[in-house]
Amino acid sequence: MNENYLQELQAIVGTEGFISSEESIDPFLQERRGLYRGHCSAVIRPGSTEEVSEVVKCCKKNNVPITPQSGNTGLCGGAVPQGGILINMGRMNRIRDFDPVNSTITAESGCVQFDLQAAARERELMMTLSCPAQKECQLGGNLSTNLGGLNVLRYGNTRDLVLGLEVVLPSGEIWHGLRGLRKDNAGYDLKHLFIGAEGTLGIITAATLKLFPFPKTRLTAIVAMAEVEDLMEVFIGTREHFADNLVGFEIIPRIAVEMVLQYDDNICEPFPSRHNWYGLIELNATNQGLDLKTPMTDFLRTFPHDSKIAANESESDALWAIRHAIPEAQKIRGASIKHDVSLPINKMSTFLTEAAKQVKARLPGILVCSFGHAGDGNVHFNLTQPEKMENQEFNNLHQEFNRIVHDLVHQMNGSIAAEHGVGQLKYEELRKYTDPVEYEMMRMIKRTFDPQNLFNPGKVIKLDG
Amino acid sequence: MNENYLQELQAIVGTEGFISSEESIDPFLQERRGLYRGHCSAVIRPGSTEEVSEVVKCCKKNNVPITPQSGNTGLCGGAVPQGGILINMGRMNRIRDFDPVNSTITAESGCVQFDLQAAARERELMMTLSCPAQKECQLGGNLSTNLGGLNVLRYGNTRDLVLGLEVVLPSGEIWHGLRGLRKDNAGYDLKHLFIGAEGTLGIITAATLKLFPFPKTRLTAIVAMAEVEDLMEVFIGTREHFADNLVGFEIIPRIAVEMVLQYDDNICEPFPSRHNWYGLIELNATNQGLDLKTPMTDFLRTFPHDSKIAANESESDALWAIRHAIPEAQKIRGASIKHDVSLPINKMSTFLTEAAKQVKARLPGILVCSFGHAGDGNVHFNLTQPEKMENQEFNNLHQEFNRIVHDLVHQMNGSIAAEHGVGQLKYEELRKYTDPVEYEMMRMIKRTFDPQNLFNPGKVIKLDG
Repeated sequence: MNENYLQELQAIVGTEGFISSEESIDPFLQERRGLYRGHCSAVIRPGSTEEVSEVVKCCKKNNVPITPQSGNTGLCGGAVPQGGILINMGRMNRIRDFDPVNSTITAESGCVQFDLQAAARERELMMTLSCPAQKECQLGGNLSTNLGGLNVLRYGNTRDLVLGLEVVLPSGEIWHGLRGLRKDNAGYDLKHLFIGAEGTLGIITAATLKLFPFPKTRLTAIVAMAEVEDLMEVFIGTREHFADNLVGFEIIPRIAVEMVLQYDDNICEPFPSRHNWYGLIELNATNQGLDLKTPMTDFLRTFPHDSKIAANESESDALWAIRHAIPEAQKIRGASIKHDVSLPINKMSTFLTEAAKQVKARLPGILVCSFGHAGDGNVHFNLTQPEKMENQEFNNLHQEFNRIVHDLVHQMNGSIAAEHGVGQLKYEELRKYTDPVEYEMMRMIKRTFDPQNLFNPGKVIKLDG
Repeated sequence: MNENYLQELQAIVGTEGFISSEESIDPFLQERRGLYRGHCSAVIRPGSTEEVSEVVKCCKKNNVPITPQSGNTGLCGGAVPQGGILINMGRMNRIRDFDPVNSTITAESGCVQFDLQAAARERELMMTLSCPAQKECQLGGNLSTNLGGLNVLRYGNTRDLVLGLEVVLPSGEIWHGLRGLRKDNAGYDLKHLFIGAEGTLGIITAATLKLFPFPKTRLTAIVAMAEVEDLMEVFIGTREHFADNLVGFEIIPRIAVEMVLQYDDNICEPFPSRHNWYGLIELNATNQGLDLKTPMTDFLRTFPHDSKIAANESESDALWAIRHAIPEAQKIRGASIKHDVSLPINKMSTFLTEAAKQVKARLPGILVCSFGHAGDGNVHFNLTQPEKMENQEFNNLHQEFNRIVHDLVHQMNGSIAAEHGVGQLKYEELRKYTDPVEYEMMRMIKRTFDPQNLFNPGKVIKLDG
């Protein structure tokens, strides 16, 4: 490797975009969750797509690996470099176009999710990407991991919102694919290859996203059940009766409510009695004055257990606060082994029951805190260490628990990577569970687009073995 | 080419699946619209995915081109063979799985669209693919052209409905990708490569599609305007006020209404006075008893022109009959040159006005019958011959009119292939209008998946030139 490439790179992006001192590089090398820490020769922060293209050409010539990074809020080590350079997209944060008639926004990869939400809201429109990291995560990462988040039932995953992309390819060429069309069948659909590819096939520099009318009303309800099967029945009913307005259906187990109550004094018990399972229902409506409350009251009355509807915005927020506090509460409670998995809806409750049984059999005293977007078939099946076990001893079991959980997911035709990506965390797991024909297609695509294997090597797709 | 391959193929599919007499092959060689007529050595009608796989392996070994075909209702010559064999999917018409809890159907490519609609409806669910050819077109073609159709605003294009695919690859291997998950980021998303690829990358043998609750109520309205700009304003307002329920917004010009009235006695003038443009609005709702009529009445009152709301199902159908009769009425009226294009919504009215001006300048007396899914940004910009011109003389101008229309679409960042596909019709056009970087990516993918160029050669993507 010719070390002069660093000088070449500095000449391309200028001092503003070039970081090479050990101290300044450091904050870019570590993932929040602390699972991964990487290394690289320099952090490059390009100011334009043309600069990204020049940087890529220089790396290609010098055979330097590239790790793309935007908000660095990922959970699977996808944006942690293993050598070479890191391209951080944070300086490319312009909204290039806002078109209320076409109902689209065109924004660069370094735009913070919350800023895009706010820009849309100013014009009575909704940018529907939304996740707990909204004030830090950036569009590039949302696109590259095909973020799910909180609004999937109503608006879809990130993939479903993208009408066009601009991408710097491993060749250094720029694909100018920023279209804003609802129908377009002019050849193969290439954008879906880059969405969710975690930067292994190129660097997404900008995207055109669909926007939606900002909802004029919302309704939040919570329902409690003894059995998760019954809770899933509530979901089926909600989907049947409120399909036009259903934004999300989240499940929360009792253990999660207890963890949250211990850690956060502002959070209250949802009901006077305790229940094994809670379901959080979110609806919205664009029609001003649409009465969601009467039909929801009637619907909830058909179930024998506790339920209530938030009377106003602040009660809605209080119910959602329980859900949002879970990851932090779980962190305080000790070490955890997490699984972001999805299943067909009809297998969700069987999976939850069976998986809990198997992990408890392996380690009595383990806490199973499985919560999340059950309406999307997506659950965060998270395991917390037993009270008297050492963190390290528990963490050492992570592969064994991965095996139990992922084997079961695989048997039930689910996915071991629902919405957090593959990155480094599931690099080997993906190889193990993917049908060989499918895995070989992925390899063929990777080799075709990135023959030097310079784009985010060691993430998502293994070329050998 | 080893002609013994026909015997090999017959041995694979049996006599039931093997058609080789000239007379019996004939019906498979021609497209309804009459633009294309092809030729092939045999029509193979496999009975299973395994048979498709064996047929492909045999063709690969003998270097025999393959044209996949399902309902053969396409409009761009995509399913018309240019030699080799034709694989017709019509015998593979089983519904493999129907899962009301997961709200999915898994069906083979030879299933007729209408049969899938009916199967879903029996269970109070909606299979949302719908187009005028619904009683003949088959799922394989719907997937391979990424059918748009009548429900796009509410439910999306075909692509948006697909959760999983089963595909026989050009290698003859079977990709078992029939998943039914709402969230799945386990590696690259491969299904979107095959959807809309018109069989050039493999043969889709089955798919898992999302279903939706069958709507409990619908509302159809028609509104008339002097200017198309004003009609698009009605669309913008409809989208803002009825986003939760908006299924479709179609535009119809006066000339289309006149053609339809001449040809079909059952169709009535929508209003006592004549208007230049009509907009057809379709809403539906899942909530039983939701009142769509009152807010729509209030909304339509804000516009000064004629408008009305269908009082019942049969009035709804009568309004839609105008729209559905257009293609046939236009056919009776003489030769036509058609353009299936899409534009950003904010450019729709400018495009319609400017394109009409340019084609009329080229040929005074030409009839511009531009109608369709304006709410999706998709219009069928169809030109009918002037009264006293010979058909052939008019048809000879098709390339010149394509140039005028497609140049304008291209300038306005639209697509020259919105929902009917590329096939043979736009094979050269796609090459001309696609950015070279993008076109080269498509070629790379084609070469990677189908290195012998046996899958539907001469369609969609040109490997040379």
